[in-house]
Amino acid sequence: MSRFAESQDDLFRRLNASISFDRRLAPYDLAQSRAHVRMLAAVGVIPGEDRDELLRGLDAVERELDDGSFRFLDEDEDIHMAIERRVTELIGPVGGRLHTARSRNDQVATDVALYVRDHALAAAEGVRELMASLLSLAERHLDWPMPGYTHLQRAQPVYVSHHLLAYFWMFDRDAARLEGAWRAADRLPLGAGALAGVNFPVDRRQVAHELGFSAVVENSLDAVSNRDFVLDYLSAAAICATHLSRLGAEIVLWSSDEFGFCEVTDAFASGSSIMPQKKNPDAAELLRAKAPRIAAHLLALHGVLHGLPLAYSKDLQEDKEHLFDAADTLELCLEASAGMLEGLRFDPQRLADAASDQFLGATDVADLLVRRGVPFRQAHGIVAGLVRDALERGKALSELDEADLASHSDLLDAEYYEVLRPDRWLESKQSEGGTSLERVREQLEQARGRL
Amino acid sequence: MSRFAESQDDLFRRLNASISFDRRLAPYDLAQSRAHVRMLAAVGVIPGEDRDELLRGLDAVERELDDGSFRFLDEDEDIHMAIERRVTELIGPVGGRLHTARSRNDQVATDVALYVRDHALAAAEGVRELMASLLSLAERHLDWPMPGYTHLQRAQPVYVSHHLLAYFWMFDRDAARLEGAWRAADRLPLGAGALAGVNFPVDRRQVAHELGFSAVVENSLDAVSNRDFVLDYLSAAAICATHLSRLGAEIVLWSSDEFGFCEVTDAFASGSSIMPQKKNPDAAELLRAKAPRIAAHLLALHGVLHGLPLAYSKDLQEDKEHLFDAADTLELCLEASAGMLEGLRFDPQRLADAASDQFLGATDVADLLVRRGVPFRQAHGIVAGLVRDALERGKALSELDEADLASHSDLLDAEYYEVLRPDRWLESKQSEGGTSLERVREQLEQARGRL
Amino acid sequence: MSRFAESQDDLFRRLNASISFDRRLAPYDLAQSRAHVRMLAAVGVIPGEDRDELLRGLDAVERELDDGSFRFLDEDEDIHMAIERRVTELIGPVGGRLHTARSRNDQVATDVALYVRDHALAAAEGVRELMASLLSLAERHLDWPMPGYTHLQRAQPVYVSHHLLAYFWMFDRDAARLEGAWRAADRLPLGAGALAGVNFPVDRRQVAHELGFSAVVENSLDAVSNRDFVLDYLSAAAICATHLSRLGAEIVLWSSDEFGFCEVTDAFASGSSIMPQKKNPDAAELLRAKAPRIAAHLLALHGVLHGLPLAYSKDLQEDKEHLFDAADTLELCLEASAGMLEGLRFDPQRLADAASDQFLGATDVADLLVRRGVPFRQAHGIVAGLVRDALERGKALSELDEADLASHSDLLDAEYYEVLRPDRWLESKQSEGGTSLERVREQLEQARGRL
Amino acid sequence: MSRFAESQDDLFRRLNASISFDRRLAPYDLAQSRAHVRMLAAVGVIPGEDRDELLRGLDAVERELDDGSFRFLDEDEDIHMAIERRVTELIGPVGGRLHTARSRNDQVATDVALYVRDHALAAAEGVRELMASLLSLAERHLDWPMPGYTHLQRAQPVYVSHHLLAYFWMFDRDAARLEGAWRAADRLPLGAGALAGVNFPVDRRQVAHELGFSAVVENSLDAVSNRDFVLDYLSAAAICATHLSRLGAEIVLWSSDEFGFCEVTDAFASGSSIMPQKKNPDAAELLRAKAPRIAAHLLALHGVLHGLPLAYSKDLQEDKEHLFDAADTLELCLEASAGMLEGLRFDPQRLADAASDQFLGATDVADLLVRRGVPFRQAHGIVAGLVRDALERGKALSELDEADLASHSDLLDAEYYEVLRPDRWLESKQSEGGTSLERVREQLEQARGRL
Repeated sequence: MSRFAESQDDLFRRLNASISFDRRLAPYDLAQSRAHVRMLAAVGVIPGEDRDELLRGLDAVERELDDGSFRFLDEDEDIHMAIERRVTELIGPVGGRLHTARSRNDQVATDVALYVRDHALAAAEGVRELMASLLSLAERHLDWPMPGYTHLQRAQPVYVSHHLLAYFWMFDRDAARLEGAWRAADRLPLGAGALAGVNFPVDRRQVAHELGFSAVVENSLDAVSNRDFVLDYLSAAAICATHLSRLGAEIVLWSSDEFGFCEVTDAFASGSSIMPQKKNPDAAELLRAKAPRIAAHLLALHGVLHGLPLAYSKDLQEDKEHLFDAADTLELCLEASAGMLEGLRFDPQRLADAASDQFLGATDVADLLVRRGVPFRQAHGIVAGLVRDALERGKALSELDEADLASHSDLLDAEYYEVLRPDRWLESKQSEGGTSLERVREQLEQARGRL
Repeated sequence: MSRFAESQDDLFRRLNASISFDRRLAPYDLAQSRAHVRMLAAVGVIPGEDRDELLRGLDAVERELDDGSFRFLDEDEDIHMAIERRVTELIGPVGGRLHTARSRNDQVATDVALYVRDHALAAAEGVRELMASLLSLAERHLDWPMPGYTHLQRAQPVYVSHHLLAYFWMFDRDAARLEGAWRAADRLPLGAGALAGVNFPVDRRQVAHELGFSAVVENSLDAVSNRDFVLDYLSAAAICATHLSRLGAEIVLWSSDEFGFCEVTDAFASGSSIMPQKKNPDAAELLRAKAPRIAAHLLALHGVLHGLPLAYSKDLQEDKEHLFDAADTLELCLEASAGMLEGLRFDPQRLADAASDQFLGATDVADLLVRRGVPFRQAHGIVAGLVRDALERGKALSELDEADLASHSDLLDAEYYEVLRPDRWLESKQSEGGTSLERVREQLEQARGRL
Repeated sequence: MSRFAESQDDLFRRLNASISFDRRLAPYDLAQSRAHVRMLAAVGVIPGEDRDELLRGLDAVERELDDGSFRFLDEDEDIHMAIERRVTELIGPVGGRLHTARSRNDQVATDVALYVRDHALAAAEGVRELMASLLSLAERHLDWPMPGYTHLQRAQPVYVSHHLLAYFWMFDRDAARLEGAWRAADRLPLGAGALAGVNFPVDRRQVAHELGFSAVVENSLDAVSNRDFVLDYLSAAAICATHLSRLGAEIVLWSSDEFGFCEVTDAFASGSSIMPQKKNPDAAELLRAKAPRIAAHLLALHGVLHGLPLAYSKDLQEDKEHLFDAADTLELCLEASAGMLEGLRFDPQRLADAASDQFLGATDVADLLVRRGVPFRQAHGIVAGLVRDALERGKALSELDEADLASHSDLLDAEYYEVLRPDRWLESKQSEGGTSLERVREQLEQARGRL
Repeated sequence: MSRFAESQDDLFRRLNASISFDRRLAPYDLAQSRAHVRMLAAVGVIPGEDRDELLRGLDAVERELDDGSFRFLDEDEDIHMAIERRVTELIGPVGGRLHTARSRNDQVATDVALYVRDHALAAAEGVRELMASLLSLAERHLDWPMPGYTHLQRAQPVYVSHHLLAYFWMFDRDAARLEGAWRAADRLPLGAGALAGVNFPVDRRQVAHELGFSAVVENSLDAVSNRDFVLDYLSAAAICATHLSRLGAEIVLWSSDEFGFCEVTDAFASGSSIMPQKKNPDAAELLRAKAPRIAAHLLALHGVLHGLPLAYSKDLQEDKEHLFDAADTLELCLEASAGMLEGLRFDPQRLADAASDQFLGATDVADLLVRRGVPFRQAHGIVAGLVRDALERGKALSELDEADLASHSDLLDAEYYEVLRPDRWLESKQSEGGTSLERVREQLEQARGRL
């Protein structure tokens, strides 16, 4: 940029240069340069021989990047300049034509959009694989009872399959959201130039088509100042990470000695540097711990964009590290969680014991009264009295005798004891989406249909 | 909840009760209760006369809420309990049947989903109105030149219409995003009971249909522990608010004495308590300042959900205040911004003067050289030299004479001066989405098509 | 503000007016107005009789605010204007002298600083009361063993007192942090005028002294644009809330049927609308859920201040709601948590059973080997082998016989069995700050000293 | 960790290993290991010859790390294990004694505390250097008038020195805050073992003394689960970054063609890839853009700690990357901002022209009326009328003639014109902390005293 008399201060270079992280955009930058060059030739802005030379240069750069022989120089401020610099070294001054009818502003927006599209799909794919793991785990534990919790208090029993499928549907929404982020980023920024359009009769639609975009951004200022597609990706990623944190937290809980519901495989656990007996579910803990990181990246980008005047400002360079780390983190977490789930072993006895806590049937007793004509609110009160009675006397509900029952309601007869049979509480939840086996089988069917 | 021997501590009540804010859910709670009651009768869980009584009670409660005569009591922990309590007062014990086959867990999820759906559409509508204001403003300033900026430095001139349309497309994405949030919340939670389904043969699809949902949540645990629809709404709202903050910030900037590009109407400005001359663009400042608030609400809900075990936990009560304040804030900001834009007056002279800064034509000079065969990178260097030359000598680019030009390149001739005619730089941006009048007219056409 | 020809748009008023929330600043506004008026008279800017009239008016307004008879009008944009308006109604045009040598910019900064100081101390006081509850609870459970956890896996036993004291020290840091926030807000903004100082020979130090500030803000622009004191308060509040969330989460965990370590009193629990047996630790859950809310307020204010040019901008009005809600939330949570702790009942049997898991002594066995000359890393390996052996054979460590031991190390003799006596593992942790009784007694002594 | 039968899954290793980032803790880990080893020998846990061997090993490892010859292996999960592994390779099995009476839990807390202390001081030092740059810049522009702004509208003139000093005081608070974060991290975690203390008679105070801590953490559970010191550092860093963002934003604004108040030196600017004339204040933009990043790191750590049960959980590993990136970012921003300020050139003419806008004197005219007995509120109204009059007639205030004045108030005479002399408005702000030269000189004196 030779209008400057002075060279860059080293501090400035360190603050300003993005090459240390934006080199990851190289494949996207090469793809867009190829499409750009072909289009420039197609519309006659550059001759065919220049196109061929440029493509040759780009191919050579790609090989160097792939085999690690590409040498980045100190003055390579960003990946775009590094590539153009090297192309020019390789093919001579014609390399200077690469930047015809293009600015770094529309160029970088295009690279980032391509990155987002790729990684939105990669994450969606990771989510689908995790869903497959969950589905398979659910199928293998179809009729294993476990307590369902509200407020982390045992509430009503459910099947392990049913509990696992709750996550299946969360992740199903994530996959849709990530695919939606991919779809939302379907307009090509390139051709907007610095901000106002370019002075050449470019064919943006041709470039869009070659790069897989369905259309072009309608407004050149918007094209260079917009990072909605990154926000969309990060919004979707943050929700997915929050779901993973819930899954991780439950596995940590279930792996505790007190719950004892499951054990992660050694391959996804670690020991202690001091306590030889320890086996820690580190992977599950990290799933929990990574969610705030991704949410923070989202928030940081909102912060960067806050109050930012149009069109391009350097602040937008702060989109990339947030995006890259979020994508790396999410993709790794998805893969690791699928791996961890595959090796998870549930303990049927601990689960069954916990699920047979008779208080879990209290709602069923209340509903028995409802079926006999008592309004639910009163029925609830009657059973609450029974529960208090049982607790105070240290008894299970089924240990109350008929006289005890009669003191609470004259509608409680032998069916009361029938209702308190553990298997009843599970199978009575016949409503659509409920935990009875028939309904869970329906769900499994639906779930298979989604994959 | 009579299993308790002790009454609630007042501190606990203050921490726990949600009635001070969840009373806003009343219309949704009434609507779902009506649908629930009709369904219970349709499937035979309650008799037709009970249904009629319950509907009569709900109608009466609605009237009391509407005319302000509804009396909330201290023991009304939440709106659901308040309504059921009042219905029972009005129609007697049959009111206790209202909660048959329902838990507060699925009830509140349903209310919140209905709220989100309503307010996602309301916000989308607000966005569309703002888009109409922007479009109308753009049409009225179709061919008014102004500088386009990058890095807040004048870069290339654009038309005011083109700049305003950049916002049009941002908000167009917002409207789509908000409508997407509406669509994503299309599954009914009700019927999930506490977490496991209910003991009655309910017809969830009938309720879904009556309430406008297209389907039912597939899994009962997910139904009561899921708040994705709130996250979806807040994610969309936060992006929209960030867009508004950019619009607000630009109007603040343009309203400064130094820019002087526009003036907000008195009706959207305020004065100073001490400085009699002041006219401050407060509305624009507040648009800027509200974005972090909405983003913070989103983040807070991510925080609440972080690591939360299934199914319902009390933590989920923290969804509502974040949601309500975000919706209130966004809807007010959208309305106010449309109002503010309508009264905005641009100053054609200040805009035109700023847009005629000759350095804005530098890219066009470079592109002239490109058309004469110089690779762009070299052309850029030549013009940078011209710029430095002009700056050092305190001259405009057009004040350099032919000898000056020749010292930089032998390809610069009379067309150089032609290229520096201000109107040229605007009209040369002929690429699709560029700022030339023809292209802006295309955009206006597209924009009209979106409304 | 009569330079305006047009009146405010209703939408603008709704967006702009702060009276709905800043009325909480009334006591601070009255206090500063009194100090301001006395100073103005002291330095001769207003005569003594005007001072007396103004003080009379301010007293009357205070009474009206206190007894609820103060009538806010639609045109009262904020509390400052409302008070001045009412003073003027009550005492006539001399009320117009109240705003001499003052701007709303320095006035509001002063009110908010006074609010922060008050509430930083109030929160510190709340923290101290919570510390007293924790200390008392620790004293009552001095020698009750329980498992200590890492990774939510039982690791080494500790006394309940020791575990509770860990929170004592967290909150001790919080109290110091909150008091530090109070101390940091010790400079008076008033006297800065709109931004540049005022035209009158005011004595800012007199006002500072009367209002309890130790000095005046050094720079008038900083005085009106600074909100560091709010950030300081919110930073401290967020950390305290994060501590409360950890305490809440542990109580939720310990209250589960699986842990069964403690039970909250009925007065801090709630039941279920559907499940009559439920007793939920709602207060503990809400302690957990409120932390993200306060952290979000902090973040929102950072967002508001991000990139904001000097001096005052309307954006700063967004400090108040974040601050007020954070203070309300934190103070309530502190009070409620102290209340909840006071009624908490631990179950000695469940705790002791969990603490006697023999694997908790594994480190002690390794350290026995260390005392016999084995480097720790090898000792760790030997004991890990023993643990695997025991697990595979379904035995406790003490059930391994001498031949078993000999197969792992020839240094394990009868002392091995001695080391595995449960009480040993607790009392062997003799290092300063460790869980042995002597050390815990030292801690209790230190803790008493802090209160 | 040989109790495991299975080796770690590669995905788990990638998720779990921290060596890629925690290697930065090496100097702190070495320092603590030396102190630990000396103490172990001093209290007789290891013999003197083992201490000497271990210190020799640690020295050798340090040299390898310093000269880059240290080879990290795939199984080096973290820096602590890598160092111990290498020490053992170098000195044999005695290396296994390094971990005697220590766990990674207290070890890593100690390393991170040492890192925080170092970097809190480094940042404070960076802040002091920036303050020195600001002071020097203020001294060089002592009496250069410029407009002061509220709402980004010209409000009252100030001296450039006065404006710059506003930042001086912000950063002065930052330095105090960072030093406070250093002081707050003055307790040694080491000696807490895994969570409960250790089985050896360690002397924690000796280690504390050697490492520069003033005391030891009082409670072993708190020692390993606490990350308050990181939150304290990040809270301070976020506020400092927010201040930098305001400074950056103002320089961006002032560098615009419209303001034209200053120009950054070429060494801190960059050009455009397409527009040869551009000179962009990238460094200032990046100062603005980095604040959300640091605030996000703070928030992420709050998220990680949210609801985390005691004592150590793997989640705590997520403290480091947030901390390291925040420290790197803040330190670089501080250095770069000092560098940028040093080369900043103000344009006296543009500043003076902007500062002489006569409306800036309106408050002074109102105060003239106050001095003549008019209550301020009325005076404000009268001058607002004058302003409207002048605006409507396109005149400056001083162009209103005596008849005009008389129509607004009979108290406006020749002194009116006197008051409107530009230099008057600056020098009339004689209140402490105001912009009059005498007051600014006082401030400069105070500021020099702080450095």
